[in-house]
Amino acid sequence: MSDTAAIPVWINGQPDTRVPVTDRGLAYGDGLFETFRIAGQQPVLLDYHLDRLMLGCRRLHIPLQRDALLAELAAWSGMSRPGVVKLMITRGSGGRGYAPASDLEPRRILQHFPLPEYPDAWFQQGIRVFPCVNRLGHSPLLAGIKHLNRLEQVLARAEWDGIDQFQEGLVCDLNGSPIEGTMSNLFIVQNQQVLTPRLDQCGVAGVMRRWLMEQFRAAGLDAMETTITLDGFRVADERFFCNSVFGVWPVARFEDNHWSPGPVSRLAQQLIRSHWF
Amino acid sequence: MSDTAAIPVWINGQPDTRVPVTDRGLAYGDGLFETFRIAGQQPVLLDYHLDRLMLGCRRLHIPLQRDALLAELAAWSGMSRPGVVKLMITRGSGGRGYAPASDLEPRRILQHFPLPEYPDAWFQQGIRVFPCVNRLGHSPLLAGIKHLNRLEQVLARAEWDGIDQFQEGLVCDLNGSPIEGTMSNLFIVQNQQVLTPRLDQCGVAGVMRRWLMEQFRAAGLDAMETTITLDGFRVADERFFCNSVFGVWPVARFEDNHWSPGPVSRLAQQLIRSHWF
Repeated sequence: MSDTAAIPVWINGQPDTRVPVTDRGLAYGDGLFETFRIAGQQPVLLDYHLDRLMLGCRRLHIPLQRDALLAELAAWSGMSRPGVVKLMITRGSGGRGYAPASDLEPRRILQHFPLPEYPDAWFQQGIRVFPCVNRLGHSPLLAGIKHLNRLEQVLARAEWDGIDQFQEGLVCDLNGSPIEGTMSNLFIVQNQQVLTPRLDQCGVAGVMRRWLMEQFRAAGLDAMETTITLDGFRVADERFFCNSVFGVWPVARFEDNHWSPGPVSRLAQQLIRSHWF
Repeated sequence: MSDTAAIPVWINGQPDTRVPVTDRGLAYGDGLFETFRIAGQQPVLLDYHLDRLMLGCRRLHIPLQRDALLAELAAWSGMSRPGVVKLMITRGSGGRGYAPASDLEPRRILQHFPLPEYPDAWFQQGIRVFPCVNRLGHSPLLAGIKHLNRLEQVLARAEWDGIDQFQEGLVCDLNGSPIEGTMSNLFIVQNQQVLTPRLDQCGVAGVMRRWLMEQFRAAGLDAMETTITLDGFRVADERFFCNSVFGVWPVARFEDNHWSPGPVSRLAQQLIRSHWF
C-alpha cells in the first residue's frame, strides 16, 4: 500500500470503527490492551507485548488464540508503518450482568496512531516530573497486567494539564511508595544497584521494563525489584522512566530538585537505540 | 407507543447501537453506570440513582448535566416500560493517552432489558451464597461509586456458573472482611443492630442499601456502617443481600450453614413491597 494511504481501524479482522454497546470492554473494562511502537517497518518488542497480553488473558480467563492474533496482525497494514499501534482485546459482547458467558468470542481492535513528537531535550537533559496526589489502590488480583480498568491512571494524569510543564507524573501506592509513572515504569539507581518497584499489589509490568531488566543483568549490573520509598527516589543516584514508545526519559526535575542524567540512564538509552529505535 | 414495540437503544439521545472505538469508556473504563428497575411505569429510586451518578461524575470530573440527562430520560420510551434500564455514562471520545481533554462531551447510553424472572423461593426461603475466593482490592479513590472498572466483580462472578445452584456470591476485601455480593449489598443483624459494611476502601454503595438504611433508622432500628468479619457474618442473627432490581434476598445457605429469614429481612421486603415493587 502507499505510504500516504490511511491505515484503517480493524475490528475482528475487518475495517470498522465502532463496537456494539453490548461489548464487555465498554460495560466493565473487561479486557486488555497493548500499545507498541513500529520503528522502521518492525514492531518493537512484539513478543514481549504478546507475552504480557496472553498472561493477562489467562488471568482474566479470556480465550484468545495467540497464533490467530499474530496472523491478523500480519495481515493488517498498520504493522509495517512507523507509529504507535494500539491493540485492544475485550471479552466480547454479552448481556447484562457480570457473569461472562463461556462461548464469547474475544473482540480484537487495532488502531494506528502517529508517533508522538517529543523534544530531544527530554531524552538528553531529562524531564520534569509531577508529584501525583492520587494513589494506586492495592489489588493483587489485577496487578501487573495491562487491563482496561484504568481509572486510577486517568485520574492521576488529570492532576496536571498538557505535557509542556510536566512530562510525566510519579504515582505512589496506598503506602506512599513510588510505583510507576502514569504511562511508564520507574527505575532508580542507588549504591550500584538498579532498582524498580515491585508490582505485585498494583501497577503495570511494562515490556520495556522487562527488557531493560534483562539487559542490565546481562551487562553485569545488580538489577532487582524491590520496594522504593519516596525519600529513596529523592536521594537516589539516578532515576528514569521507560516505556516502549518513548524509550527512556531521565528525571531532571522533581519538587525542588535538579538532576543530570547518570550513566545507567545513558546505558539504557544506548541499549534501546542499538536494538530498537 | 405500543407495548410490544421494541425499545431502542439510545446513544446521546438518538437511536443507535454502537460507539466509536475512541470512546474512553471502552479504552479505560472511564465512566459510570446505573441499573434501575422500572416498576409499573415508574423508575424505582431514580433520585437516588441520579444522586450516586452525579457524585461519581464529580469524583471522576465528568461534566454531566443532571437536568439535561433527566430530559433525555423523559423523552425515551424505555422509562415507562416494566423492566431494567441500564444507563452508561462515559467521558466521551478522546485520542490515545490517559489525559482527558477538557472539552469532551459525556456519552449517554440507554438500554432496556426485560426484568429477570427470579423464583419466588429466593424471596421467601432465601438464597444459597457462594464464598468467593477473589478479593476486592483497596482503592479509596474509587470506592463507593459505580464506575466502569468492574473486573473484580467479573472475576468474582466467574467463580461459579449459572444462577441455579448459587444465586449470589459473598465477596471479601484484602483483609478477608465481607464487603458485598457480586451484584448487591450486604446487611447482617446482630444484637438488635442492623449492620452493613463500610465502603470507604472498596465496594459499590448501592441505592437500595441507602434507602433501606434510612428506612431502618426511621423505624427506630439501630442501623450503622461498620467492619464485618467473616465469622460475624456466620454467627449473625440474620443476613441478607439487596439491590434495586431484586429487592431483598435473605441468605438461606452458606458453607454448611442453613438459616431461615428473620424479622429484619422480612421488614425490608415489606418496605420495598409497599413503596416500590
